[in-house]
Amino acid sequence: MIKLNCDMGESFAAWTMGDDAAVMPHIDMANIACGFHAGGPAIMAQTIQLAIEHQVEIGAHPAYPDLAGFGRRTLHFPPTELKAILHYQIGAMRALCLQAGAQISYVKPHGALYNDMQRDQELFEVVCRVIAEQNHSHPEHPPLYLLTLATANNATQQRIADECQVELCFEAFADRCYEPDGSLRSRQYSDAVFTDRAKILAQAKAFASGEPIIASDGSHILLQPQTLCVHGDNAESIATVVAIRQALSDS
Amino acid sequence: MIKLNCDMGESFAAWTMGDDAAVMPHIDMANIACGFHAGGPAIMAQTIQLAIEHQVEIGAHPAYPDLAGFGRRTLHFPPTELKAILHYQIGAMRALCLQAGAQISYVKPHGALYNDMQRDQELFEVVCRVIAEQNHSHPEHPPLYLLTLATANNATQQRIADECQVELCFEAFADRCYEPDGSLRSRQYSDAVFTDRAKILAQAKAFASGEPIIASDGSHILLQPQTLCVHGDNAESIATVVAIRQALSDS
Amino acid sequence: MIKLNCDMGESFAAWTMGDDAAVMPHIDMANIACGFHAGGPAIMAQTIQLAIEHQVEIGAHPAYPDLAGFGRRTLHFPPTELKAILHYQIGAMRALCLQAGAQISYVKPHGALYNDMQRDQELFEVVCRVIAEQNHSHPEHPPLYLLTLATANNATQQRIADECQVELCFEAFADRCYEPDGSLRSRQYSDAVFTDRAKILAQAKAFASGEPIIASDGSHILLQPQTLCVHGDNAESIATVVAIRQALSDS
Amino acid sequence: MIKLNCDMGESFAAWTMGDDAAVMPHIDMANIACGFHAGGPAIMAQTIQLAIEHQVEIGAHPAYPDLAGFGRRTLHFPPTELKAILHYQIGAMRALCLQAGAQISYVKPHGALYNDMQRDQELFEVVCRVIAEQNHSHPEHPPLYLLTLATANNATQQRIADECQVELCFEAFADRCYEPDGSLRSRQYSDAVFTDRAKILAQAKAFASGEPIIASDGSHILLQPQTLCVHGDNAESIATVVAIRQALSDS
Repeated sequence: MIKLNCDMGESFAAWTMGDDAAVMPHIDMANIACGFHAGGPAIMAQTIQLAIEHQVEIGAHPAYPDLAGFGRRTLHFPPTELKAILHYQIGAMRALCLQAGAQISYVKPHGALYNDMQRDQELFEVVCRVIAEQNHSHPEHPPLYLLTLATANNATQQRIADECQVELCFEAFADRCYEPDGSLRSRQYSDAVFTDRAKILAQAKAFASGEPIIASDGSHILLQPQTLCVHGDNAESIATVVAIRQALSDS
Repeated sequence: MIKLNCDMGESFAAWTMGDDAAVMPHIDMANIACGFHAGGPAIMAQTIQLAIEHQVEIGAHPAYPDLAGFGRRTLHFPPTELKAILHYQIGAMRALCLQAGAQISYVKPHGALYNDMQRDQELFEVVCRVIAEQNHSHPEHPPLYLLTLATANNATQQRIADECQVELCFEAFADRCYEPDGSLRSRQYSDAVFTDRAKILAQAKAFASGEPIIASDGSHILLQPQTLCVHGDNAESIATVVAIRQALSDS
Repeated sequence: MIKLNCDMGESFAAWTMGDDAAVMPHIDMANIACGFHAGGPAIMAQTIQLAIEHQVEIGAHPAYPDLAGFGRRTLHFPPTELKAILHYQIGAMRALCLQAGAQISYVKPHGALYNDMQRDQELFEVVCRVIAEQNHSHPEHPPLYLLTLATANNATQQRIADECQVELCFEAFADRCYEPDGSLRSRQYSDAVFTDRAKILAQAKAFASGEPIIASDGSHILLQPQTLCVHGDNAESIATVVAIRQALSDS
Repeated sequence: MIKLNCDMGESFAAWTMGDDAAVMPHIDMANIACGFHAGGPAIMAQTIQLAIEHQVEIGAHPAYPDLAGFGRRTLHFPPTELKAILHYQIGAMRALCLQAGAQISYVKPHGALYNDMQRDQELFEVVCRVIAEQNHSHPEHPPLYLLTLATANNATQQRIADECQVELCFEAFADRCYEPDGSLRSRQYSDAVFTDRAKILAQAKAFASGEPIIASDGSHILLQPQTLCVHGDNAESIATVVAIRQALSDS
């Protein structure tokens, strides 16, 4: 069955973001912030604990070092420096998982880093190389896989990942409008994000059953995600997660 | 032979601290900052590389999260939170070492955390527990040991470390005046830090040969450190390191 | 009539704290964070705008430089350095007020700085001196006053403020239990904070009408605040503010 | 006589940058960091004090909020937000100057903000508007002027500044190679920065006497700066400042 993944552990210091405790029971994969765009050691440890309680897979959710911009701004780093930034965050997350008796399963880059790697093959390869290096240096742990965006044609990403011997897991969004070419419709358009729950559930079911979805121009496109990205920001979005979970169980 | 350890990787962003490249050839153990009081991923990676080139042992140098205070201010955290703070930093350092083909050998807490754990047995035990947990979750790597302050009577620290099954390594300072009870003379006294190189070399040789040193009141005390902490801040302190190294080789 | 003051502008970057827009219509004085424990230039500008719209007095709410600790941890600074920290924040707030066509009216230190200055006369004097210096260098603006805690005996604070020629404004808490000596009951006791709205309204009315309140041991104590500190954290606390406002208008 | 300006107060926390005390006696204008790319309240207060002692004009040196990038990375902000960011820093600097009995004289944006405003007229206008607003709200102080880059044709910047009623002061670099069109030669070329002191002194003298300088292609271009930007980073650059000062006094 298609899995639900959700960004978690994105509170910071005195500031709370999202209701992790409320959404955790309903998801399969927790993308946990690593302290560079949000979170921090104590929040990571708590979120890992919560994931363990609900038998949720744990992913490192590393980002550009940018608390003030919540990791949503593109920052340029030489590949060597970016690799250090990623190894640092994944290593920190791995250590906290191990102490809790858990394993880190995958890596999902956050925000601008995630978006940049969709456009920039070199950046995508840097991320893959980092994961391959982590896997190489931890033969005693299951290999980490990379969570990335499902598109109409994943061939390039798949080729790079294959070269690095990194497994990919593709995600899609039940609440986002897609363009005919399979890319996400820009948030500058008012219809980029669905607010109608029926529409969200319909798209979630289509993804789950391997059927095409309807793009912004009415055409049909087929994406084949293994997981849907859901949101735990507020009561409404969590109710949507519960509804998606229910809809997928029924079908 | 007694080893020389030195704090390294304490630059930050555009700001340089110390001349790591100049001092690295002359030391045995590099205490590398983990990004919480200084340093950061890229600086850590560079410093690890430099340590590898000079076959210097690598230690994690974790701190309270306090860049503005350079880790020199006591910050209170509940034990669970402090453990997360330490696992995070050690995990990040371990990951960067592994990618460079190196191993992390030990942990030396920095600044206020180091001082606080000398006074506070509970804090010392938290640090030991973290190291024990790291060792437990990495049976494939050599166990980390803890670098701490040699005193006239190390019995309490030794007992706690034994209970946690963590090995201790004791350090002393060739350039610091000691009190008759074996504690470091407070920096509020003008004679707390030696600037006379002959005096520094004499104390270094005494430590190295297992002989007593002369305390602030003229009495003799015996400390038995396995390593001396040296400084790479500037040309003069690096010249002192070279002189200590020479003096110890000659004797 | 007794005024209501409230901490505002305490969001940070992507993180929201409190519902400033909802509480602003019901208060008289906005203590606006200055970027050192929360807030920042853009949030300050927005909050100032909101205060202007609702004809609310604007106060600078400076803090120790400690975002990670939300200004709730005591940090020690030499007086000269602390003065610079305060002038910096007040100056930044003054500039943003002036650009918006508004005036800054008062200063209310935040968190640990507020608590520390209640206990530490030297610190209280530093704060007063800073305000006096601000007033001295801005004869063209109305003098800033200092918002501090009403106690059973304000004589010491009043004397220091008089020496500095700084006006004081005393605040009390409708939702906090007081000790017989007029200090706030420690939050370690379960009855330190009132949750029963009737009790909160009764205490608010007592303060407003200059009547004694009932202390933790049942005795009566008389505090004479000019303002009550209220909270805009969530829907419930804002409903309490509305209820207090209503109760005070009725009486 | 042409003035010398220098970036100052760019240390941060435990990290020192430049030798402000050594260079201050030899310059006319101190561009003091405002805490967003470097510096901070205490460092600002110290640097202001040093400027006063040497009768050096004080300028605010505001930047994008980016300590980790030393203000050298372009960060995009909506104009309203950028105005708040600038007012905040200038206001903080003004407050610290006033307490020291000094005046802030001008504004020189730092790093990426400086470079961006040379290319982007809208950004240049935002900076001018902020200065105009500061001047408007402080009729009791001398108006701030804007320090910007002298080019072969300053007409556009001059027109915008005139519209905002802000005075401009143009600077040039004695140690930088210029392109035939009057722009600075990119640092990607090895000859972008002069290291030969004779060459630096010759260009400084040309600027000071209103003569043309020799561009990268050997052609002559005429820039007419009112001030030269010099550097206090290290002993060598300070010796160059002293030499420039001497050369200009002799001529």
